[in-house]
Amino acid sequence: MPRVITFGEVMMRLATPGHLRFSQTNSLEMTFGGGEANVAVSLANYGIDAAFVTRLPKNDLAQTCINQLRGFGVDTRHIIRGGERVGIYFLESGASQRASTVTYDRAHSAISEIDAKEVDWSKVFAEAEWFHFTGITPALSPKAAAATLEAAKAAKRLGLTVSADLNYRKKLWTTAKAKEVMTEICQYVDVCIANEEDAEKVFGIKASGTDVHGGKIDHARYIEVAEKLTQQFKFKGVAITLRESFSASHNGWSGLYYTEGKGYFSRRYDIQIVDRVGGGDSFGGGLIYALVSKKSPQEVIEFAVAASCLKHSISGDYNLVSLKEVETLLQGDGSGRVQR
Amino acid sequence: MPRVITFGEVMMRLATPGHLRFSQTNSLEMTFGGGEANVAVSLANYGIDAAFVTRLPKNDLAQTCINQLRGFGVDTRHIIRGGERVGIYFLESGASQRASTVTYDRAHSAISEIDAKEVDWSKVFAEAEWFHFTGITPALSPKAAAATLEAAKAAKRLGLTVSADLNYRKKLWTTAKAKEVMTEICQYVDVCIANEEDAEKVFGIKASGTDVHGGKIDHARYIEVAEKLTQQFKFKGVAITLRESFSASHNGWSGLYYTEGKGYFSRRYDIQIVDRVGGGDSFGGGLIYALVSKKSPQEVIEFAVAASCLKHSISGDYNLVSLKEVETLLQGDGSGRVQR
Amino acid sequence: MPRVITFGEVMMRLATPGHLRFSQTNSLEMTFGGGEANVAVSLANYGIDAAFVTRLPKNDLAQTCINQLRGFGVDTRHIIRGGERVGIYFLESGASQRASTVTYDRAHSAISEIDAKEVDWSKVFAEAEWFHFTGITPALSPKAAAATLEAAKAAKRLGLTVSADLNYRKKLWTTAKAKEVMTEICQYVDVCIANEEDAEKVFGIKASGTDVHGGKIDHARYIEVAEKLTQQFKFKGVAITLRESFSASHNGWSGLYYTEGKGYFSRRYDIQIVDRVGGGDSFGGGLIYALVSKKSPQEVIEFAVAASCLKHSISGDYNLVSLKEVETLLQGDGSGRVQR
Amino acid sequence: MPRVITFGEVMMRLATPGHLRFSQTNSLEMTFGGGEANVAVSLANYGIDAAFVTRLPKNDLAQTCINQLRGFGVDTRHIIRGGERVGIYFLESGASQRASTVTYDRAHSAISEIDAKEVDWSKVFAEAEWFHFTGITPALSPKAAAATLEAAKAAKRLGLTVSADLNYRKKLWTTAKAKEVMTEICQYVDVCIANEEDAEKVFGIKASGTDVHGGKIDHARYIEVAEKLTQQFKFKGVAITLRESFSASHNGWSGLYYTEGKGYFSRRYDIQIVDRVGGGDSFGGGLIYALVSKKSPQEVIEFAVAASCLKHSISGDYNLVSLKEVETLLQGDGSGRVQR
Amino acid sequence: MPRVITFGEVMMRLATPGHLRFSQTNSLEMTFGGGEANVAVSLANYGIDAAFVTRLPKNDLAQTCINQLRGFGVDTRHIIRGGERVGIYFLESGASQRASTVTYDRAHSAISEIDAKEVDWSKVFAEAEWFHFTGITPALSPKAAAATLEAAKAAKRLGLTVSADLNYRKKLWTTAKAKEVMTEICQYVDVCIANEEDAEKVFGIKASGTDVHGGKIDHARYIEVAEKLTQQFKFKGVAITLRESFSASHNGWSGLYYTEGKGYFSRRYDIQIVDRVGGGDSFGGGLIYALVSKKSPQEVIEFAVAASCLKHSISGDYNLVSLKEVETLLQGDGSGRVQR
Amino acid sequence: MPRVITFGEVMMRLATPGHLRFSQTNSLEMTFGGGEANVAVSLANYGIDAAFVTRLPKNDLAQTCINQLRGFGVDTRHIIRGGERVGIYFLESGASQRASTVTYDRAHSAISEIDAKEVDWSKVFAEAEWFHFTGITPALSPKAAAATLEAAKAAKRLGLTVSADLNYRKKLWTTAKAKEVMTEICQYVDVCIANEEDAEKVFGIKASGTDVHGGKIDHARYIEVAEKLTQQFKFKGVAITLRESFSASHNGWSGLYYTEGKGYFSRRYDIQIVDRVGGGDSFGGGLIYALVSKKSPQEVIEFAVAASCLKHSISGDYNLVSLKEVETLLQGDGSGRVQR
Repeated sequence: MPRVITFGEVMMRLATPGHLRFSQTNSLEMTFGGGEANVAVSLANYGIDAAFVTRLPKNDLAQTCINQLRGFGVDTRHIIRGGERVGIYFLESGASQRASTVTYDRAHSAISEIDAKEVDWSKVFAEAEWFHFTGITPALSPKAAAATLEAAKAAKRLGLTVSADLNYRKKLWTTAKAKEVMTEICQYVDVCIANEEDAEKVFGIKASGTDVHGGKIDHARYIEVAEKLTQQFKFKGVAITLRESFSASHNGWSGLYYTEGKGYFSRRYDIQIVDRVGGGDSFGGGLIYALVSKKSPQEVIEFAVAASCLKHSISGDYNLVSLKEVETLLQGDGSGRVQR
Repeated sequence: MPRVITFGEVMMRLATPGHLRFSQTNSLEMTFGGGEANVAVSLANYGIDAAFVTRLPKNDLAQTCINQLRGFGVDTRHIIRGGERVGIYFLESGASQRASTVTYDRAHSAISEIDAKEVDWSKVFAEAEWFHFTGITPALSPKAAAATLEAAKAAKRLGLTVSADLNYRKKLWTTAKAKEVMTEICQYVDVCIANEEDAEKVFGIKASGTDVHGGKIDHARYIEVAEKLTQQFKFKGVAITLRESFSASHNGWSGLYYTEGKGYFSRRYDIQIVDRVGGGDSFGGGLIYALVSKKSPQEVIEFAVAASCLKHSISGDYNLVSLKEVETLLQGDGSGRVQR
Repeated sequence: MPRVITFGEVMMRLATPGHLRFSQTNSLEMTFGGGEANVAVSLANYGIDAAFVTRLPKNDLAQTCINQLRGFGVDTRHIIRGGERVGIYFLESGASQRASTVTYDRAHSAISEIDAKEVDWSKVFAEAEWFHFTGITPALSPKAAAATLEAAKAAKRLGLTVSADLNYRKKLWTTAKAKEVMTEICQYVDVCIANEEDAEKVFGIKASGTDVHGGKIDHARYIEVAEKLTQQFKFKGVAITLRESFSASHNGWSGLYYTEGKGYFSRRYDIQIVDRVGGGDSFGGGLIYALVSKKSPQEVIEFAVAASCLKHSISGDYNLVSLKEVETLLQGDGSGRVQR
Repeated sequence: MPRVITFGEVMMRLATPGHLRFSQTNSLEMTFGGGEANVAVSLANYGIDAAFVTRLPKNDLAQTCINQLRGFGVDTRHIIRGGERVGIYFLESGASQRASTVTYDRAHSAISEIDAKEVDWSKVFAEAEWFHFTGITPALSPKAAAATLEAAKAAKRLGLTVSADLNYRKKLWTTAKAKEVMTEICQYVDVCIANEEDAEKVFGIKASGTDVHGGKIDHARYIEVAEKLTQQFKFKGVAITLRESFSASHNGWSGLYYTEGKGYFSRRYDIQIVDRVGGGDSFGGGLIYALVSKKSPQEVIEFAVAASCLKHSISGDYNLVSLKEVETLLQGDGSGRVQR
Repeated sequence: MPRVITFGEVMMRLATPGHLRFSQTNSLEMTFGGGEANVAVSLANYGIDAAFVTRLPKNDLAQTCINQLRGFGVDTRHIIRGGERVGIYFLESGASQRASTVTYDRAHSAISEIDAKEVDWSKVFAEAEWFHFTGITPALSPKAAAATLEAAKAAKRLGLTVSADLNYRKKLWTTAKAKEVMTEICQYVDVCIANEEDAEKVFGIKASGTDVHGGKIDHARYIEVAEKLTQQFKFKGVAITLRESFSASHNGWSGLYYTEGKGYFSRRYDIQIVDRVGGGDSFGGGLIYALVSKKSPQEVIEFAVAASCLKHSISGDYNLVSLKEVETLLQGDGSGRVQR
Repeated sequence: MPRVITFGEVMMRLATPGHLRFSQTNSLEMTFGGGEANVAVSLANYGIDAAFVTRLPKNDLAQTCINQLRGFGVDTRHIIRGGERVGIYFLESGASQRASTVTYDRAHSAISEIDAKEVDWSKVFAEAEWFHFTGITPALSPKAAAATLEAAKAAKRLGLTVSADLNYRKKLWTTAKAKEVMTEICQYVDVCIANEEDAEKVFGIKASGTDVHGGKIDHARYIEVAEKLTQQFKFKGVAITLRESFSASHNGWSGLYYTEGKGYFSRRYDIQIVDRVGGGDSFGGGLIYALVSKKSPQEVIEFAVAASCLKHSISGDYNLVSLKEVETLLQGDGSGRVQR
């Protein structure tokens, strides 16, 4: 069982029930999530030995988060306990033409105040073969950026494959700062994951003329983006999610995996959305699973896209689907017929 | 900040959760709503100084309703306290081919027993520039009709613009009675709002050949209806919502604003429905906002339709969307991408 | 009011809320359901004098189930009390490409240990004109199979019309066993109900070349299946549901009624699914209602399909729609416009 | 199985969850209840053939109420369908020093507009041996009073035993009106049930010096009240509930049954209250059960008090406890040890 | 209607349902509360013109908080919008021997970063006669302390009566810092409110020998504390709550009001607790109401204690009881009999 | 960190919300619990390395149970996957004089069909120092009894301390069978835990004259019982819980620990009950913790009783309290004052 390490922030997610607005509700649904925790849960679900590293305060809220992660089979023993608060994000789920809204309350979270020396990476990476993080982690704070850089370097030095999901977040940093920081860290990255906007926002690399809001997808342009990324950073692989946002309720979903000079596009799914938060992370989780399982490039992108297609039917950040469910969909059965 | 007054009934709305039938549930979701209250909440959301006038008994249920309205920023100081009961409507939300059902329990409500002299309209209308009501108010009872007429006359006399949403309700009165009463009141109306059926039911004015159940829309016929209404009542503007009812879950939605001899059609939206009750009222609220904001006719209808498009994604009667959200949709982004 | 008897298992249905997975929830929604109970509730809803026969233990869970059935107007006086447990099924409702999952916990249920002599069928069938069961009942256990056979024989002997819904369940028995048992029982059956797969799984009769997962429907092939069934068992009528499974959220739905050498296809509905469990049973309920109401073959299939179309908008196994709602849909109004 | 008929109003009960106030909640718990319906459910629970007669409109709310009553085993076939509305009462459950509040919305209910001729009492009373009503029924309206009087007369004429729970409600009528109407009806009554205040409010008969708010109970005075009632109306039995209201959370509970010149006091229970609404009705239900079961006077009052003691642990109006549970308490086990 | 101004922090309160621990729940109950907001709501409930001043960010969470406050009738027009976050506190409600736990997440809240100049106190205090704050406000941060001092000075200068609830919070500051800051601010205070521990923690003034955990109350010692406070600060009045903590479910509750050299003790209540958070604030609210209503010292303490006794039966921070309910309890009726 | 192994059944617990009866609810609260799992969770909470051994089928329900256990820090790696079903128990929580009811549906559970050879006890017990089981495990079935015996023998052989909670369950076996089986197994037991009834039911050893329902406790008699148990089985320690059942809402709670010829009684707690299921198990968990922590006999019984006192304030089987919370109570603070 290959061992994968992810590193980043896990937040408390407080969502209004159904499609209610904050002003309409007296209760919030409490789950937890965050880019790298989401990937760890995906991997644990598929049977990978996944460990998630973060920093969380010593309180009952953090403990509840940890309980759930280890409940889902994630190794939480390397989580650093310290700091003041668990980051929070508040979510209203949109529908039809109304977008979901995320209100962050994550400043001053424990991980944003991490000291790069708190984690003993050589211990964490022992017996591991893969390290994953997203562009959110270095965006949290200069301290978190320093810790991410140190982690990436250590992983590289220790022979792990390193993957990064660019995941640009405009509320956390500017494109200029993102470019500066990510350009340095990406020297240590082997596999790059991005959505339609990330490459442009972070590195100024564009899929020119593509209308990401309208949903038209032009395969040639995406290959061009992947090529440019590869050229700049010597990535072994670049994976791009192709989302067609028709509305908050209805999306098209497919992906591209580009490796060794060639692009592989997946089948495209037409999705009725239950919850799209964490969709990109579930793609990353599927991709890493497929790569550590030594699947072919076409299989890799098909697995990542099928896995993340299913995520859109799951409430919460974590992609709680089984390997068998992904495989059923891969074999062409997306009919949703009752399994009994 | 322009001041708008609305007058009518606000009811307790008791809805089954999700798509449950009454016989399946032990709990009901309690909100409040009613044509004119819904318009007032829309307007307050957009920053208008909106006051809602009604009559409600002195009990905790009525007080809860008032608390919510003033919570949403509506001026409730002119609400008359008296009478015996808060009107109620029970709602089951349909889905797919099953229609939503409304069971009214509104007879004998406080406002239906209003004495026209209880409201001092000159005081209520002080500093206001717009007065709005719907055809439901006069339909409640002869007393409510008398009060509506008096309000409309006073508004006219005091120089306010008067708008009326025809809103025919077959359970409240006959078409004959509606025609008689509304014909008199509409003498004092400047802007008329209607849906596909109202003009015919109330005034016998038809969009001949149109199949409202099937959803085909013939622009020329709607202009014809608007013209006839204008001719009969000298309306300054006529606004018509064009709903294509494919199912309880899926509608098409657009609108027409007709003024000074010309019709302006809006963009058409394809809607996945969360809750369509109050859809027409949110159109009225958007329309009044756009008119008091001195937008052009095309902008008026676009705003009213975009605002009410979003309402279909909101649970409850009130259209709890912000000006910014309407403007985002107006600028063409109905992609529902997560705002974070 | 014609009297109809159904016989089979009713289970406790424990479903996660919304689209949650078991690992995400601390509460389960408790309702009850089962093929023949579902048909009885449908019939009671349409005004038929429907009695449901089963075996349930003497405990509060069973009593709650009985209370609900008699609440819905089903005659429960012939239910045998005895045995150890109420069968249970656990349900996760899927969405989009993710299928709903059913986890059965029904072994050792009271009815699976029924002694064929416990029911006095001549008493149960007194004044009744129709007897209905599904292929699930004999699949439960050899004892249940014996009781079903005895019931079918008694019904036939006493002049009732007998209907059977093949309803093959692979977790309960093999196709070989199903063929053996059902071939014997079907000698006493007049009306056979099946879905796309049942005829093949139970009797090896195929709609050759049809892709049930893809959703293409070839009318000629279904007629061929109905003909073969009729030839083999001398059925007076064969009804087949035609489901196009696009996803767990979206299906096409229509049906075929074949009688006296001729096939009658219904109108086709495009359905946004709330809950499809019990969809087939609601078709059976509609079919029996239409047949005992002496409708024409075309009316029979239209009624059965419209009734079961509406079921897909109802949570839970039971099809809680009224005769009037079915008739509204039959008259062409599937627009879902609010009824007020 | 003796047959008992009860007659009165059943209302929708809409309660806030837990101890919330109306202004704090977005959902209400929907159950049904009313003095005579509550008695009928109690009796059905104990195995009596109980029928409840009322008048309810033809809508889904009324049907849900009927479904629940027949679910609990009450014969609902004599319910008259007609009228406009189901009466409603809104409930906030108090705690400690804060009293529960009931807001009635029952005016114009279907039964308040009953025509005395709508019920064919000779048919309803066929094979019955007991008729029960409360003072609430005649208090609803002159029409309801006329129907109650006619029912009581018919019951008497047909040889049934008639019981009445005085149940004075100050929001429904004055003490003067209550005295006038109840004095006439009580001529036909055999068994009178009252709480501490009823005898005084309705007939001016006092337990002088008793402090009902403070909770001191003086046995001699209660016997005096029972004697006076007996003298005035020739009652065969008078039953009085003795509630000591320490707070909304904590009550003492006992009772007196007076018959043939002698008073029998029950054991006294110290109660932690879950829901005390319907407490008096559950006493009436227990009393009638014990009387039709031919228990001795001491057994009668012990049964009635034990049954109603348990009611205080049940949410909702209906006393959903079994005969066995009452008997366990009668045998002295109020220890609340887990039954497993 | 006298006008009262309160100033402090209002937080989002996220509580587990019932008595659940964080690790047991997937949902949290969202309300809002904070010492001074709680007092403002109490006062608005009693008909006082109450305004609450705080600083809140421009987001939907803050807006929901404001909506609720203005819904309850509090004037929110002077709330400053700015800053980054709404303070949060997480609550688990204890029971029996298990204490409730509060986990604060309030650092960096908008009000803690207030600039004393952001509020124009002369405008805020116009036409007001009372200003109230608690020791929590200056404890939040040096900036908040500076703003509190400025507010108290301005209030004094403008002729308002100033009240302060000492409300020592050990997680916010040390006793040394509290003493330093509060000693300065208390120069401007007229009425001091404290619980058993505050005087000692903040000023080192002790009710020597009193066992606050055990619940024994020694009246003489509390008078001694009040006297010492009065001597040191020239308070016009000192009010002390006397809580006897038997368990998380059961408390004794009474109070002392000391003025002009004399102490007035209230009646003592025995309380079954629903929610004791906000109990002290509801005492403050009752006290201020009684003082601005010019009640006698004995009436003042009786009102404050009765009002706050009722608070313990209300979920949430706000004391949502009416003047009438307090008066009923003051008149001696704490029997909790159903009001109908 | 000492390692403790527990072995037994964990069931799905399906409870009605609040104090509702089955017939009143449409939802059930799903948690998990069982004597030995409950002990393991208690121990993990206190920082012990606790492993729980059972047999569970390969389905999502079992996986959810395992996820929760490992979430709470229990080592679940030795759980055997196999068999058909997860045992279930249905729970209605009583109140006041109404007892809680447990309806078992545990027959045929995976563990009842365990083959003694499926567990490799020498591997399970490696590095462990304590083994715990209850009398429920051997009562499940002869196979489960055989496995328990084998486990106890192995533990003894490998030098572990063995504890057994007698936990007699009359629905699982007769007293005769219990005596036979437990007499054999208890040869390998060092520490015996019992409640008031167990010693008598299982071994016929009586606390003569004690009225367990009434709640009177006679210390001398309990010591006599402990002595007799010790004499018969050479136990190193005997612990007895002393419950005074005043009602389902109110209990007295204390305990006796008898060792080396001397009895140690704990302090007695007066408890307002939230949930008493699992109370005995939490006593066992506290006892084992205190014993492996080498506390003195008086400390042992105080810890066990304080820990289990707190359990009564926790919903669900598991005693989710921290070491710190137990210690606070041990230090005499049961005042329930808010911790903030």
